[in-house]
Amino acid sequence: MTADVVPLKRPEGQPSLDPMLGLTAPGMNAVNAVILDRMQSKIPLIPALAGHLISGGGKRLRPMLTLAGAEVVGYNGTRHHKLAAAVEFIHTATLLHDDVVDGSDLRRGKAAANIVFGNPATVLVGDFLFSRAFELMVEDGSLKVLKILSNASAVIAEGEVDQLTAQRQIETSEERYLSIIGAKTAALFAAASRIAAVVAECDERREQALDDYGRNLGIAFQLVDDAIDYDSDASTMGKARGDDFREGKMTLPVILAYARGSEDERKFWQAAIAGHRTDDAALEEATHLIARHDALLATRERARHFASRAIDALSIFPDSAARRAMAEAAEFAVARGY
Amino acid sequence: MTADVVPLKRPEGQPSLDPMLGLTAPGMNAVNAVILDRMQSKIPLIPALAGHLISGGGKRLRPMLTLAGAEVVGYNGTRHHKLAAAVEFIHTATLLHDDVVDGSDLRRGKAAANIVFGNPATVLVGDFLFSRAFELMVEDGSLKVLKILSNASAVIAEGEVDQLTAQRQIETSEERYLSIIGAKTAALFAAASRIAAVVAECDERREQALDDYGRNLGIAFQLVDDAIDYDSDASTMGKARGDDFREGKMTLPVILAYARGSEDERKFWQAAIAGHRTDDAALEEATHLIARHDALLATRERARHFASRAIDALSIFPDSAARRAMAEAAEFAVARGY
Repeated sequence: MTADVVPLKRPEGQPSLDPMLGLTAPGMNAVNAVILDRMQSKIPLIPALAGHLISGGGKRLRPMLTLAGAEVVGYNGTRHHKLAAAVEFIHTATLLHDDVVDGSDLRRGKAAANIVFGNPATVLVGDFLFSRAFELMVEDGSLKVLKILSNASAVIAEGEVDQLTAQRQIETSEERYLSIIGAKTAALFAAASRIAAVVAECDERREQALDDYGRNLGIAFQLVDDAIDYDSDASTMGKARGDDFREGKMTLPVILAYARGSEDERKFWQAAIAGHRTDDAALEEATHLIARHDALLATRERARHFASRAIDALSIFPDSAARRAMAEAAEFAVARGY
Repeated sequence: MTADVVPLKRPEGQPSLDPMLGLTAPGMNAVNAVILDRMQSKIPLIPALAGHLISGGGKRLRPMLTLAGAEVVGYNGTRHHKLAAAVEFIHTATLLHDDVVDGSDLRRGKAAANIVFGNPATVLVGDFLFSRAFELMVEDGSLKVLKILSNASAVIAEGEVDQLTAQRQIETSEERYLSIIGAKTAALFAAASRIAAVVAECDERREQALDDYGRNLGIAFQLVDDAIDYDSDASTMGKARGDDFREGKMTLPVILAYARGSEDERKFWQAAIAGHRTDDAALEEATHLIARHDALLATRERARHFASRAIDALSIFPDSAARRAMAEAAEFAVARGY
């Protein structure tokens, strides 16, 4: 039960997303208005299904990156609101398709869209939101933004297919895993941050700095997500713990426990990841082996490395509340769920 | 067996797609080169799956419309090759997602991608091709083209969701059906044609004329597709006859047979479309009732109406081989499978 207790105040010294949330709150109201307006359609099933996920309490981290990026470069316009909504639509479309691909039961603590509305509608509403994202970008009219986000979208799909190919393949390397999460997760974090510099007409160096920040932050977030899936102490982010294990998804905790394991342990992992052992006892065994080899700690240490790179990428910007909030978000990415 | 005989020469007076094929053959070589080049990825499953469908002998009617449109307005450049490839990628993405949505077994006479590669990869490669389509458009750099095709993509998804909502609903009206096929099929035909006028920098009147041609042609094609699914004499277009019936899809032959049917016949349709009667005997009964009420003939007559509107939309262009080929394609849309 203790994992369910939400502290009212953050403990002293514990990094938090709060400064980022505070920094971007006014802008996020505008972004949310665009999201709610543009997910509408004369076909009632579309806003019903999209709203199920969109109103489902996601952090909206990616559009927040666009807003925070705009703050850190001192952009005073409003163009980024529509673009941040486009980023969230792309993300929502990939989540809907992921839920179909993974056959998920839960998303953000409630029944996944595919369970409530079925796979067909979930696929098609994903397509709709993806198209809407491009309509929003076209309305903004920046070919540079369109290029960044259409490329990110293709890279995300490639990363998802690559992840599918690696599924149930115990010999997947850490390099391959980093390449997969760099594509499926970090590419959109990078693009979401970068487009803030584009609308602000920054030079290439600042554009690249925001891209680097977002990309490294995205990798750190995904690493910690993948650790939490095996962490019995962590809050579960609204998805069922052990999902990755049962699906035979090759994430860093498994890769490290397998690399560091004995011959017998490796035999267990081979059977488990191949799908021959996926029951609760096997999950307990997996969790135990991961703990024995400090694989969760090592995964968080890897995350810390990328978070540090994210923070250092911000060093070309002058000190500001925005820069501090973004740096703390990177610290938070590593520490959350602890 | 007679339906399998392919005549070497078309009978005198029988409309054909051949003039359109001849007109666009040189351009289609360039388009095919772009398609083959841009469906590549470092993830081998992507070209394998995309190629399964793309090399599967589709007519590539939609990119052909872009090329024919460019001919009829006298465009001499090459920009439309990339854009025609983008149109085909959007279409291929929707076919891949359709196969998942419908649980199809066959597509273009061979096993559908979802059967060979599974639903997850099929959804994700669809997403990849969709993103690639936008990358191609961004490379071309016309915001007007991007607007037309991003809008068409959103409308297609809306039409597909609407079709899903109407599935197994026997009371679906002809108006609703026309609205569904206008969105799911005709919107891309219209956009594919229209963008030819955009790259040629035609005035709004010519742009609209090509849009009208494509939209009406698309409706005619879909009407005849839907007739062929109940036509035991027709060639089957490589999909299993009776698919629409078994899926409870509301198409015009059913709508008309139901409207014209007796009370007993209506009871049959209610049970069949609700999914209570989907076996071969029920399909035979459905085919028999549709024939009794001349519903296939009526569907083709409706198609003829839209084909005539397509042909008349071309009247603002001077007479040319291109215009004649496009007009004959509209005649062919109505007559094929007869």
